[in-house]
Amino acid sequence: MLLNCDLGESFGAWTMGLDEQAMAVIDCANIACGFHGGDPDVIAKTLVLAKQYNVTIGAHPSYPDLQGFGRRSMKLSPQTLTNTLHYQISALYGMALCQGLSVTYVKPHGALYNDMMADESILETVIQAVANYPKPLKLMILATAKQAQHQRLADKFGVELMFEAFADRLYTDQGLLTPRSQPNAVHDKSTLMAQVKQLVEQGTVTTNTGKQLPLKADTLCVHGDNEASITLVKEISILLTGE
Amino acid sequence: MLLNCDLGESFGAWTMGLDEQAMAVIDCANIACGFHGGDPDVIAKTLVLAKQYNVTIGAHPSYPDLQGFGRRSMKLSPQTLTNTLHYQISALYGMALCQGLSVTYVKPHGALYNDMMADESILETVIQAVANYPKPLKLMILATAKQAQHQRLADKFGVELMFEAFADRLYTDQGLLTPRSQPNAVHDKSTLMAQVKQLVEQGTVTTNTGKQLPLKADTLCVHGDNEASITLVKEISILLTGE
Amino acid sequence: MLLNCDLGESFGAWTMGLDEQAMAVIDCANIACGFHGGDPDVIAKTLVLAKQYNVTIGAHPSYPDLQGFGRRSMKLSPQTLTNTLHYQISALYGMALCQGLSVTYVKPHGALYNDMMADESILETVIQAVANYPKPLKLMILATAKQAQHQRLADKFGVELMFEAFADRLYTDQGLLTPRSQPNAVHDKSTLMAQVKQLVEQGTVTTNTGKQLPLKADTLCVHGDNEASITLVKEISILLTGE
Amino acid sequence: MLLNCDLGESFGAWTMGLDEQAMAVIDCANIACGFHGGDPDVIAKTLVLAKQYNVTIGAHPSYPDLQGFGRRSMKLSPQTLTNTLHYQISALYGMALCQGLSVTYVKPHGALYNDMMADESILETVIQAVANYPKPLKLMILATAKQAQHQRLADKFGVELMFEAFADRLYTDQGLLTPRSQPNAVHDKSTLMAQVKQLVEQGTVTTNTGKQLPLKADTLCVHGDNEASITLVKEISILLTGE
Repeated sequence: MLLNCDLGESFGAWTMGLDEQAMAVIDCANIACGFHGGDPDVIAKTLVLAKQYNVTIGAHPSYPDLQGFGRRSMKLSPQTLTNTLHYQISALYGMALCQGLSVTYVKPHGALYNDMMADESILETVIQAVANYPKPLKLMILATAKQAQHQRLADKFGVELMFEAFADRLYTDQGLLTPRSQPNAVHDKSTLMAQVKQLVEQGTVTTNTGKQLPLKADTLCVHGDNEASITLVKEISILLTGE
Repeated sequence: MLLNCDLGESFGAWTMGLDEQAMAVIDCANIACGFHGGDPDVIAKTLVLAKQYNVTIGAHPSYPDLQGFGRRSMKLSPQTLTNTLHYQISALYGMALCQGLSVTYVKPHGALYNDMMADESILETVIQAVANYPKPLKLMILATAKQAQHQRLADKFGVELMFEAFADRLYTDQGLLTPRSQPNAVHDKSTLMAQVKQLVEQGTVTTNTGKQLPLKADTLCVHGDNEASITLVKEISILLTGE
Repeated sequence: MLLNCDLGESFGAWTMGLDEQAMAVIDCANIACGFHGGDPDVIAKTLVLAKQYNVTIGAHPSYPDLQGFGRRSMKLSPQTLTNTLHYQISALYGMALCQGLSVTYVKPHGALYNDMMADESILETVIQAVANYPKPLKLMILATAKQAQHQRLADKFGVELMFEAFADRLYTDQGLLTPRSQPNAVHDKSTLMAQVKQLVEQGTVTTNTGKQLPLKADTLCVHGDNEASITLVKEISILLTGE
Repeated sequence: MLLNCDLGESFGAWTMGLDEQAMAVIDCANIACGFHGGDPDVIAKTLVLAKQYNVTIGAHPSYPDLQGFGRRSMKLSPQTLTNTLHYQISALYGMALCQGLSVTYVKPHGALYNDMMADESILETVIQAVANYPKPLKLMILATAKQAQHQRLADKFGVELMFEAFADRLYTDQGLLTPRSQPNAVHDKSTLMAQVKQLVEQGTVTTNTGKQLPLKADTLCVHGDNEASITLVKEISILLTGE
């Protein structure tokens, strides 16, 4: 079970996240490509860190919305969404190459991620955009109750999926995340650690109705926002690896 | 003598230039990368045109200044300038790859072009950025009285230069362009055609002091702004090729 | 029946619309405020034209989306939408004051306009934002079958409405515009002129089902995109004023 | 001696500075207007704080350079600079009015501030822009050895100046700030407190050559970046007021 984390989301004079500390404890870095965060300098520095800590690199493309940090849905045509993805993936891919590195997967950011999980036509556009990129790339999406169906869709276009699960969030019966606006949406630490354990050992999560939902996850999404998140990632890492 | 032209400089709802008509009559397209013009859709459409008309593709990176169209100098550190160039070249390079195309050269845009020709330390940063890009790229710069010196600088980093000349502009004795603010800075059509003829046949231009300045140019910069520019490009093309 | 037109939508090096020609033939200019088009220079120049032609000035605020020209819906919270409107209105209001002019109304742009007409909670936020602006401002919205209901909502907050109608668009029975994607959505010239005549003389439009829908319009939306639109505005003006 | 501080420089999801803590200990808030930091939400929140702590409000306009945080010089024509200032001042002015507040002065930000102090033609453009704004506004500039000359320039246009001094920076004989790149450019705490004391009691600073330079300062520039800066502001405040 790999640990993935959103990184490189600083912009200009504004800093976000403890990128170096996070790099030291994760496996996969989802690196912002400049449309919701990240600028050429931030991207270059983040790639240096990824190299130093030998972390796998993913592109983390977004809707073009710096002010909204890519968290606001924007209705893009399939063609515009495809071009928007290709532009961002290309920018990161080339800058990684400049440092002798390679981008191996794509994880859409924020509202685009949510929209893709909620609307299969958007997911299909994303899958096709990844399939049509001239270098081999995997796509990271949420493991939900529909993951078999999503797998078939990806198979159709020859795209390898990486399914991710969340440690800290309460699931619905559909395998979606309970909105943060609801009580109990975000787990306390002991529930969080229990959810990780259950995911790894039994391949299930307990949903908000008490149901045991099977989820096959390849990777866990973790956060590097502050010291507390970094400490938590370390504890999850110990739980997973026994080290 | 190749004809090069700045293209793909539309943005969002705003259109600039007669790109398709220009593509039909030029050899090399300097394609905007999103920082002074161009967005993912515009880039994709411009690449389709370049493919259709079999035009050589160059990246046309700029200072990050959409409102100023890249025409305002910005003091970037060498590292920031390098990252800014790599980001833009990468974005265009990958989007070209998506269409089975390749980017073969870089021509900086606007104020960055002027700054690079006026300040050798900036030129050196640009040359190094091109040299360090992980794919082979030539660099297009202005042919001036210093072109031998610029050639030696490029040789030091193993970068192949493409020297360009201007058909429509009056030169100084240094081989720079007389600022547009001065009278006679822009040639009328007959003087323009005469300057092209002289460049090709004698390898010189007549400067604003009447001097014959030797300039070895690989390419001529032409414009596709409107019908009149397109007509002019066609006439230059006939003069050059005899067809 | 006043003629209103979107103006000042150029940006930086990109020009859009025949602003001066349009100013000469309209009554009310909806001036872009910098979020979908317009920049400080464009705004200043547009205000000079408005002064010269003695045209009433409206603020034309938008979602913050330059690349999408404000045509893509963005889900903003009521508070953020309010602040976004106040910022843009304030910018235009102050720049108008610099030239001794006054802004007298607000007409939301593009996707924000459509969203406001489709979702009464968004309309209420817009009305409140206009009501809470510390200077008296009217709000221009679409005259639809719900215009009495919209009037009551505006009355509640003490905001004066200006209802606008479209000359060139086919209406639905709800008084909304048939989407451009549908056949017959945009009228030919004779149907357009007939629709204007009917609006003025009978206060109705003929909908896509052949129904006569009563619409009380204070103003007609016209366009200044190109020579053909300007000619059309002149003919509408002659029809309306008999001059 | 008033304390002024740059505030409202967060943007979107990115936070900068301890704005509320700073508001509690300063007299004048220089509020970013959206071009180097600040967005409509940030501006509205910052104005709420200014109201709560009864702090005098200044507009803090910048070159249009979000990525560079307004710290990179951009060559704008006098007309463009004027429009750029009027747009930003207007936006803040109107949003302040929405909360029943008033903007009383302007302090240019970053590279624009430095350029204005280094080039009197730019200072004159700024002074004229402030003079031509249709509401009474003071202009805050650096107190230097040329302050009498700057005063005469401002008098010519009827603009009231507020001269500011720096507590933490070593001065040159010209009354400019020693660049941060030089050793001793930034004072340690005891030197800083001594400089404040000397400014208040003797109206002079000791320059990098040991000279006593007379400076009449109306306000001291302080910082609210972090806990240490806030503590320092409190100590300076105690030194100044004896409370």
